Formats: sequence, structure tokens, C-alpha cells
Amino acid sequence: MSMNAPAKREFSILANTMKPSAIRLLLKVANQPDMISFGGGLPNPESFPLDDVRKIFDEQLAKNGKKMLQYGATEGLESLNVALSKRLKDKEGIKSEPTEIIQTTGSQEALYMIGKIFANPGEYVITEAPTYVGTISALKGNGIRMIGVDMDHYGMRMDALRETLKDRPNPKFIYVIPNFQNPSGITMSLERRKELLEIANERGITIIEDDPYGALRFAGPHVPTLKSMDNDVVYLGTFSKVLSPGIRLGYVVAPHDVIEKLNVAKQALDLASSSVSEYIAEAYISGGYMEKQIPKIIDLYREKRDLMIESFGNYFPEDVEFTRPNGGMFLWVTRRGANTDSLFEEAVRQKVLYVVGSAFYPDGDNHESMRLNFTYSSNENIVEGVKRLGKLFETTGK
Amino acid sequence: MSMNAPAKREFSILANTMKPSAIRLLLKVANQPDMISFGGGLPNPESFPLDDVRKIFDEQLAKNGKKMLQYGATEGLESLNVALSKRLKDKEGIKSEPTEIIQTTGSQEALYMIGKIFANPGEYVITEAPTYVGTISALKGNGIRMIGVDMDHYGMRMDALRETLKDRPNPKFIYVIPNFQNPSGITMSLERRKELLEIANERGITIIEDDPYGALRFAGPHVPTLKSMDNDVVYLGTFSKVLSPGIRLGYVVAPHDVIEKLNVAKQALDLASSSVSEYIAEAYISGGYMEKQIPKIIDLYREKRDLMIESFGNYFPEDVEFTRPNGGMFLWVTRRGANTDSLFEEAVRQKVLYVVGSAFYPDGDNHESMRLNFTYSSNENIVEGVKRLGKLFETTGK
Repeated sequence: MSMNAPAKREFSILANTMKPSAIRLLLKVANQPDMISFGGGLPNPESFPLDDVRKIFDEQLAKNGKKMLQYGATEGLESLNVALSKRLKDKEGIKSEPTEIIQTTGSQEALYMIGKIFANPGEYVITEAPTYVGTISALKGNGIRMIGVDMDHYGMRMDALRETLKDRPNPKFIYVIPNFQNPSGITMSLERRKELLEIANERGITIIEDDPYGALRFAGPHVPTLKSMDNDVVYLGTFSKVLSPGIRLGYVVAPHDVIEKLNVAKQALDLASSSVSEYIAEAYISGGYMEKQIPKIIDLYREKRDLMIESFGNYFPEDVEFTRPNGGMFLWVTRRGANTDSLFEEAVRQKVLYVVGSAFYPDGDNHESMRLNFTYSSNENIVEGVKRLGKLFETTGK
Repeated sequence: MSMNAPAKREFSILANTMKPSAIRLLLKVANQPDMISFGGGLPNPESFPLDDVRKIFDEQLAKNGKKMLQYGATEGLESLNVALSKRLKDKEGIKSEPTEIIQTTGSQEALYMIGKIFANPGEYVITEAPTYVGTISALKGNGIRMIGVDMDHYGMRMDALRETLKDRPNPKFIYVIPNFQNPSGITMSLERRKELLEIANERGITIIEDDPYGALRFAGPHVPTLKSMDNDVVYLGTFSKVLSPGIRLGYVVAPHDVIEKLNVAKQALDLASSSVSEYIAEAYISGGYMEKQIPKIIDLYREKRDLMIESFGNYFPEDVEFTRPNGGMFLWVTRRGANTDSLFEEAVRQKVLYVVGSAFYPDGDNHESMRLNFTYSSNENIVEGVKRLGKLFETTGK
């Protein structure tokens, strides 16, 4: 014990402002027995290529062990950035040099650093409304304000964006998740993407394109990434959804001036990401494992999405609305007049978890929606969980 | 290419202020052929327990594969924090609950977060002078000012600390590396440690104790950690020097109020560290691998330290002073009247690298010293590198 501990320790303003993420708190409840969780954005463990990872690890350790366990470069393993640059060109038509890529400790670190290098505390940026909770915490953690722009079924509404820009003409960037958005599941149409780039270019605003789910398309035609249409876009990718979130590896593809600032910021934040993870990811791409694994993940998730939507039909009151995403991990469920925040406690008692819609709005408005993850639960639990939610809707009315 | 890229992108004030680390820049030169580098703080690859890691990885993947590749808790794997808590009690007399530990992405992330949660931009903290460059970049990256307090051969001078506190009575914390300090190699005496705690407790100042090298003692009696004498101390440890820096795993042991703030900050920064790394580290401790490996690392490094000091005797002019550390990775070499910054270019031409002393001072003063790493180079290169440095000293005079 302290000889003479201060009565109350003083922390910084940011430390006192930051709040624990709703989803992180959820993880604790999620471990209760019999709990069915549609809460966390977890990949299904069945999607992890365990045998490939074992093989890759053993080979890489034998071949590159001394480098794999040593400090790596801040920008990441060169051969990984080369492999990614090639893959992004082949699959997405993104033409970027390996030196225009930096590895990050999950996309979360990328989001945090993007906030840090582009905006001073108190300055504002534009996001979709709703938007990813991790982005909200990364930006709030830098003291940055977010202005949300409404979405419809084609993505961020461009009329609403123009309206917002009248009052707020100098956002530090516009942040979007064009493919299978988290939390809404909505994909931005090609027309909207073109219009967004036009608006941004007219005004010299940087676009941040976060694309964690792009490779997980179950249906419908591919829509080109913003980055492939305009190389000035800052593009965020990750291995979390196509390999493993446990290796904590994401990446940013951006013009050299941005990469340079991210590199210096990353030196201060964590020096480098895990070289072990980087060697695994490199072999996962170069050895062709990734191209074999992605279709398996897609098949697994498509079935789960279909089952969840089918269960909505069987167990939800007719006035419950929901999105029908062509990929990704999430469904967005809305019931006009309901309050998903006040329903939540009863849901925990009924042993089913969702994330309240308000968590995805910087200001916490919108209480009529919830985000449901369809990738993590077993098929049995998807049916049973939706049944429990349906009962909750029935018994509580609105 | 951009349709209409902004002529010059605007970045945040912090992004424009932060500079690349001298050591990170050095890594590029270090790859030149025939270069002998005493620059980076790299463990010797011979110290990596490759066979143990292979065995551990395969076992853990078989046993816990689906958890190992999944998102982990922000505070880290529970069983790892339990194992660490036990080890710290057994080895260091530190009495901390597992819930008073949080895993970080290397100690660098811990340093960054410590700055972030304790100090607002523009506020100041106290460090030893010289101090670790990574700490300087982590704190500067938060816009925090550092006041350096001079050291002698017993560590930070307490008379100088008292003097500094007259002008600067409210530092947000005092940061020290008591064991085999980076860069000086100096160990703080027990008397100094007690006095430092007294001063801090009198005034309610938080002490940050960074202890990356404590386990690597080659000679002399163990000196108790500050944390073991006062549980209010915030203690930083790492697996980088006793297992592998490539797994990017460090940890903070601190009172619950501090851990809580670090946890929320980490959610914004990178959500969690690598679960793969955490499962490896847990088995490394619990399986007894660590206790077998540390004596091997010590034997390897003691020999290299002895060889480097012996070579100083053979090749350095008599007026060159140096520290004789009882552990760790670094020697601090000083020549009065010399300018190690202006010598550096010639050193690169002579194919030998060191880190300029000025890099370890927040304000870049002190140009008479250099830091030499003795752990990374082969024995042949240690002798040859010191010879080259000796010639440099001879030919350039001062």
C-alpha cells in the first residue's frame, strides 16, 4: 500500500472525458451462461483457418524466425506491403505503391491515428449517421467533434451532406464505410460514391474510406472502392475479417504525405505492429491461402444472414424494419416508436444481446434501432435469439 | 491520381510537430553492407527461444486456437495477468492483483497512454536527463513538456530534483528507469529510490517506473523496485527483452484507478493487443520457459558487455569515459569537448553506428556523449566496431 497516496489522483481532460465502449462492456455480459449474443462484431471462430495458420507459422519460424521475433519496421514488413499492393491492384483496381501502405495494430489504431494527424482537439469531421462505434471512440479520444450525415438505403445522403457543408464548410475529413456499413449493413451506390468524390474534390476535403468488409460480399455486383476511383482517398483495410482479429493487423493505403505523418505518429504510439502477425499475414496472401479462405467465410456468413432474416419473418412483429445487407456482418433493425435503450435490460434478462442504436451516434440520438451481428452465433442460437427478441418486441409493445 | 488534389494537405499541429525518431532513421542506415551497428536497442537474435516458441505456438493453437485468433479483452488475457501477478510477487515482491495489470502493444504504447491519461498538452513532467528516446517521442506526441533532472552514478540526483521542484512544483508525474537505465546503463541506488518515493509522497506526485531490463542483471545485488516499496507506483514491464520484441507485448501494473483510465484509452487506440502474442507469453511464463531462458540471455549479454569494455581499454583514447552497467543493453560513452553529432557522419563513412547523446535529451542538449548497444552485434563486430570508433576519436581529436 502507498505510504501516502494522493486522496484523488488527477487525470487529463481527455482521460476524464473518454468513456468505455458500449461494446467492450457488453463482452462481459456476453460471457454469462445461455446468453445469446448478437452484440459484438466477432467473426465466427469456424471461419479461422487454424490449419493454415499452423502451417504458415511453422514455415515462417523455420525460415525467418530471427526476424519474426525481432523489432520490425514501423511501416510494416516490406514483403507484406508488396503483397498487399499487388492484391489491392488485382482485386480492387487500387494502384498504390508498397511505400503508400502502412501496417497498423488493427484498424482501430489506424482510426485513432487518422484522427490525430488530421484534426486538432475541438475541430470537427463528418461521418455517416449512424457510424462505427470504434471510430467514435478513436475520434473522441483525440477530442475531435463529429457531425453525422443521415443515410438512406443508398448510403450517405448527398443532399444532406451539401446541407451540412453549408453550416460546416471545413471538416478535417469525411469518413465513410461504403461497403456493408457498420452498423447499418448498407452499401453506398456507385452514383453516390461518384458524387461524394466530386463534392470532396471541389472543396479539397480528404476522404477516409474504411473497408473492413469489402471482401465479404454474398450477393450482388461489386461496387468500385472510392480509392480505386481517386487515389487521393485514404483507404483502411484489415486482416480481422478475412484471417483473424487476434493478430491485430490492419493497414492504411494513402498518398505519401499521409503515410509519412502516420509513420511518425505510430513511432510514438507503438513503434511497430507485431512482426509475428506480419509474417503470418504475408504468407497468408502470397501462399494463396487467403483466396481459398474468403469463399468459405462468405458461404458461412451468407447462410447465417439468410437464416436470421428468415427468422425475423417468423418471429418479429410486422412493423419491425430491417436492412438486407449483401455482405459484411451486421443487420440494422428499427421499430418506430420503440426505445432500444430501455428494452436492453429486459433483453439481458431474456438472455439475448444486441447493441443499442444510440451507441452508433456521436451524440447518442436515435433510440429506435439496434445492431444485430449475424456472423458469430451458431445457427440454433440465431433462431432462438431472434425468437427471444421477437417475444421482447411483442410483450413490451413499443 | 487525384482528380483535383488539394495543393497542400493540412495536418494537425501535433502531426506537424512530431519528428521521426533518430533511432528509427538509423535502422535504414544500419542495413548497409559491412555496417556495424551499436545503434538500435535490439536484443540479440541468438537470445530468441525459437524452439520454445514453436512448441508453445503449436500447443496453444491446438488447445486454444479459436480464442487465440479471436478478439481478446482490452486488459489482456486473464490467465496471462494471473501468471504475471504471481511472477512479479515471487521475483520482485510486487503485490498486485491480476486486475491491476493491463497488457499493452509493447512498452511504447504504455508510455504513450501514460502521457495521454496524466497530462494535458502543454503540461510538464519530470524525467531523468538523459532519458529513453521512445519516452520523449511518446510524450511529445501528446504535446507534453519534459523537464530533465541530472543523473550521477547513483541515478537521478535528488538535490537536483528538489531544486527543479522549487521552480516546477506540479509535474504530472516523475518518470524513471531505475535499473540499467536507457541510455546511461546506470542503476539507481536503494537510498535514492527511498528518497525519490519520499519526495513524491510528500507532494502527491505519481511515480512512473519503467523496468524493461530489470531481469537482465549480470552482476551485483538485486535492488528492490520502487513498486515493491510503494504500491502506488505505476510500473511498466515488457516481454521484448526476455522473450521477443516482435510479439509487441508490454504491460502496466498500477492501482485500479489508473488501470481503468488506461483501459478506456486503449479501447480508442487499438482495442486490445495481439491475443496470439498473449497466449504465447502466458505459456512462456507458466510453462517455466522464461526462467530457463533468462539465465541464457544474461550469460550471452554479460560476455558482450565485458568484451566491449575490454575493447574500450584496447582502442579508445584515455580521456574517453564510459559507464560500467551491471545489466541491460547499453553503455554510455562520453568524451569531454567532443561533439558526437558532428562526428556521426564520419562514423557512418567508417561503417560504425551509435546513437548521438543529444537524442536522449528532450531539448537536444549534451553533445559529448553517445549510446552504444552491446547486445546485438557479434563478438567479432564488437571488437571491430570499437576499433573503428577508437580511430574516429583519434583522428578527429575532439
